[in-house]
Amino acid sequence: MSARYSIGFDYGTESVRALVVDVANGRVAGRGAQKYPHGVIDETLPTTGEKLPADYALQHPRDWLTSVAAACKEAMKSARVSADDVIGIGVDFTACTMLPCLRDGTPLCMVHPFDEIALAWPKLWKHHGAKAETDRINQVANQRREKWLSRFGGVIGLEWFFPKLLETLNHAPRVTTAAEVWLEAGDWLVWQLVDGPFPECSTSNLVRSTCQAGYKAMWSPTGGYPSADFFAAVNPKLVPIVQHCLPGAHRSPGTAAGVLSATSAKMLGLRAGVPVSASIIDAHAGVPGAGVADAGTLVMVMGTSSCHMLNSKIERLIPGVAGVVEDGILPGFFGYETGQASVGDAFAWFVDAFKLSHEVLSGQAEKLPPGAGGVIALDWLNSCRTPHMDGNLSGAFVGITLSTKPAQLYRALLEATAMGVRWIVDLLNDGGVPVKKLVASGGLPARSPLLMQIYADVLNREIKIAESDESVALGSAILGALAAGKKSTGHPSPAAAIRAMARQREDLIYTPNRAAAKAYEKLYQHYRSLGDTRGSVAQIMRAMRSH
Amino acid sequence: MSARYSIGFDYGTESVRALVVDVANGRVAGRGAQKYPHGVIDETLPTTGEKLPADYALQHPRDWLTSVAAACKEAMKSARVSADDVIGIGVDFTACTMLPCLRDGTPLCMVHPFDEIALAWPKLWKHHGAKAETDRINQVANQRREKWLSRFGGVIGLEWFFPKLLETLNHAPRVTTAAEVWLEAGDWLVWQLVDGPFPECSTSNLVRSTCQAGYKAMWSPTGGYPSADFFAAVNPKLVPIVQHCLPGAHRSPGTAAGVLSATSAKMLGLRAGVPVSASIIDAHAGVPGAGVADAGTLVMVMGTSSCHMLNSKIERLIPGVAGVVEDGILPGFFGYETGQASVGDAFAWFVDAFKLSHEVLSGQAEKLPPGAGGVIALDWLNSCRTPHMDGNLSGAFVGITLSTKPAQLYRALLEATAMGVRWIVDLLNDGGVPVKKLVASGGLPARSPLLMQIYADVLNREIKIAESDESVALGSAILGALAAGKKSTGHPSPAAAIRAMARQREDLIYTPNRAAAKAYEKLYQHYRSLGDTRGSVAQIMRAMRSH
Repeated sequence: MSARYSIGFDYGTESVRALVVDVANGRVAGRGAQKYPHGVIDETLPTTGEKLPADYALQHPRDWLTSVAAACKEAMKSARVSADDVIGIGVDFTACTMLPCLRDGTPLCMVHPFDEIALAWPKLWKHHGAKAETDRINQVANQRREKWLSRFGGVIGLEWFFPKLLETLNHAPRVTTAAEVWLEAGDWLVWQLVDGPFPECSTSNLVRSTCQAGYKAMWSPTGGYPSADFFAAVNPKLVPIVQHCLPGAHRSPGTAAGVLSATSAKMLGLRAGVPVSASIIDAHAGVPGAGVADAGTLVMVMGTSSCHMLNSKIERLIPGVAGVVEDGILPGFFGYETGQASVGDAFAWFVDAFKLSHEVLSGQAEKLPPGAGGVIALDWLNSCRTPHMDGNLSGAFVGITLSTKPAQLYRALLEATAMGVRWIVDLLNDGGVPVKKLVASGGLPARSPLLMQIYADVLNREIKIAESDESVALGSAILGALAAGKKSTGHPSPAAAIRAMARQREDLIYTPNRAAAKAYEKLYQHYRSLGDTRGSVAQIMRAMRSH
Repeated sequence: MSARYSIGFDYGTESVRALVVDVANGRVAGRGAQKYPHGVIDETLPTTGEKLPADYALQHPRDWLTSVAAACKEAMKSARVSADDVIGIGVDFTACTMLPCLRDGTPLCMVHPFDEIALAWPKLWKHHGAKAETDRINQVANQRREKWLSRFGGVIGLEWFFPKLLETLNHAPRVTTAAEVWLEAGDWLVWQLVDGPFPECSTSNLVRSTCQAGYKAMWSPTGGYPSADFFAAVNPKLVPIVQHCLPGAHRSPGTAAGVLSATSAKMLGLRAGVPVSASIIDAHAGVPGAGVADAGTLVMVMGTSSCHMLNSKIERLIPGVAGVVEDGILPGFFGYETGQASVGDAFAWFVDAFKLSHEVLSGQAEKLPPGAGGVIALDWLNSCRTPHMDGNLSGAFVGITLSTKPAQLYRALLEATAMGVRWIVDLLNDGGVPVKKLVASGGLPARSPLLMQIYADVLNREIKIAESDESVALGSAILGALAAGKKSTGHPSPAAAIRAMARQREDLIYTPNRAAAKAYEKLYQHYRSLGDTRGSVAQIMRAMRSH
């Protein structure tokens, strides 16, 4: 039997990447990548030249198709693999990136005259136009003491599905009248692969991911979406939309949403009939991509921001944890998600604002003791996700003297993000969801050994590093293989397949330094005190935001 | 009658300046300045090459004499004034700069073998070797509930007279055994002028200033020094020192300590018999030097740090106010002193640490609204004098986001120092000592119009600027004229002499912008909240200092 391969499509903010992976051992056989021709649409609408508001971020759905076709062909070509040996496809996507379309899959923004209405276009995850709508939804959910709210730490986010939908209803009602289907971009893409591309799609073949639905649209396997009563209390016009415009069965990532259609196969240069996994949120694909298949391992996907995911057999509703979703990451587990909104971004802010160098600062910061020589920071420069879920918080430095050097502020920022993770681990442990192991992946761990050592010291835990530096795309390919089933992969179980296809490095494990860990015990208490939302600092932060 | 002149000797940290001033109108006829050959002695002891501890800062007393001789001759030469027309001399000096000497005025550090003992040398104001001694004195004073403590806001400072003396007793007892007289450098200098120079001095002609004694040595006209019981409780060996080694009558600045001796007159190129005023602390000379003779005007001497002084007919003991001293600044008033330990120094730290430019940052900061676009700072980068008198506090920035620019942090620092002054004004007003007018002097007001406008807006008050940019040296010259008496000056009263010899600018008065003042009302509340020592930030600052 010849080698078998799966393909992962990794949809990022600026580009899509395709990875062709050997199903037996996870070896990357070939790669391709393609930037979206329109990139992020945040200045003017392509059709009209209309200037967009500052908090808008849109994308062009045709980019997603043309770019993936190019990336896939490039990856297959570099892999020198026959299309016949590809057994499965996985798709991860930024979320919540969502769009309205017609029943045949046609995006509304590609139908005149809606192409000239900004809110008919796909709203990218970081589109922040729905502030008032988020407040409204939270207010009603709190008033009605909606039970599902506790699955999200008590607060739903600005970037989620229903705020974006309600924003369109409030500001472009013509769009909601015309829209026949509202869906996540990842689900739309999978729909195109198995039943399209548009206008060939039928809603009877539309499959939605339990991941996106669970984390971004308040859906659960047992409770479905929030009730009609709830939506009626928010805005009665939402009720028929939720009832009629959210068609589709829900399936977990790693289970097949269908098989590749003939037209889409031709577009990608692949064979029709290949199983396609239900989609997954990009960061969440990093869990299988880091070789993690068991309960109790926290996978930290660390980049400009950080996302931390944990599979567990235990369901607990923990205030401050952004989401717990059944089958949210892998089938058979409750998937926990927490996040830090600025990690690499905070370090980059410092370096860019003052025209400094990461290399020089890291070299100086490495020589400093824990506590950065007397400076402590709060890392909420892009607001606080876990534990406070509060967009009005911000960053801070405390302990500055006339002899404070830039490297001290830089190290204080590194330490602050580490202490933020410790807070998250404490939150999960104290909430009854044990964190047994820590695995880091993403771009930052490879770039900053100092940062990873600080994490090990602050957390007082061993930290392993995902072997692959493309763990999200690899995770997608693994989910594609899982969707093909054990007969195709040859692996006896999903866990066995994940462990065979992805691993952590054996040659680089960060272990805590005992003296540093002891010093950080105290510093962590100061960090908690500084970050206490009942304290004056948080109140001042909120006031300064609205100032 | 020909023009009459007075001379002010202004002893700074690095150099002495001499100003020859027309007594009729304050016109500066001539200037001279001379750096101290040894500067600040903080690395090695000149006699032995011994490396000094990091917190040591000493000076060489011979420097004070050789430098003032050169500066005075230079000033007289440039003024083209006859020595016969000089009617009075004033001396201001950094404080507490203090030294041990013999009864004939010889500094102990100029007598072998004491010249080889660092603690026998004059300790400069910023010598910080007496931390433990300061704690000890505060502890005993608090335990015994010493009444005089309330004149100093409840805390005595690290840089004061008795901590420095006790440090010598603890660490160099041979020096205290040999010392016959302990005194302030300003008083030593005046003693040299009227009765020396050494070894020609006699303690019967030693005059001490009520200013230095009152602000730095816990002395008062009615109570004298603290009691023998108190000193015995601190350290019994202090009792005979206080009893025998602090000779000299106390006189207020602006009253004569004596007249210039023949030898000193020759040294300075002046005429013997000229009245010499009792000395004054350098910043305090800025009050008459800014043309302020009345009660209720706060004079802000603004430089690397700021010192704020106010004369009042009312005596109130206000927690947090660093000192209230009868006859402390001008005869017949209670002199109040408060301080900010880092003002210009804080701005310089920011500019130097990040290699930026004051000019560029000011230009950008000027365009920002009050609140610096969402950032608020605490200006305690060199600890907090008023209101907390706490050396363990530090600086902070709160409200930082990924889009924060350096100019925002810079403006936040400017605003923080302004809000620090507002806190001080509120403290005085609320304590029953009305602040009616504000006058700024020193180097900063001339250099930073933006800063002064922010002060006017934050304080919501008109701020006048001292006409002279040498107001401290001018103040000394004025005190020299006052010491000569009204027959010599021709002015009917001290207040009339001050008003004739110094003024505020008429062409540049900073007035509050109504909208900005309103915005700062809210921001000031946030600043107070951030700076509340019962709050978490102050506790964290203290913990980080000891970390």
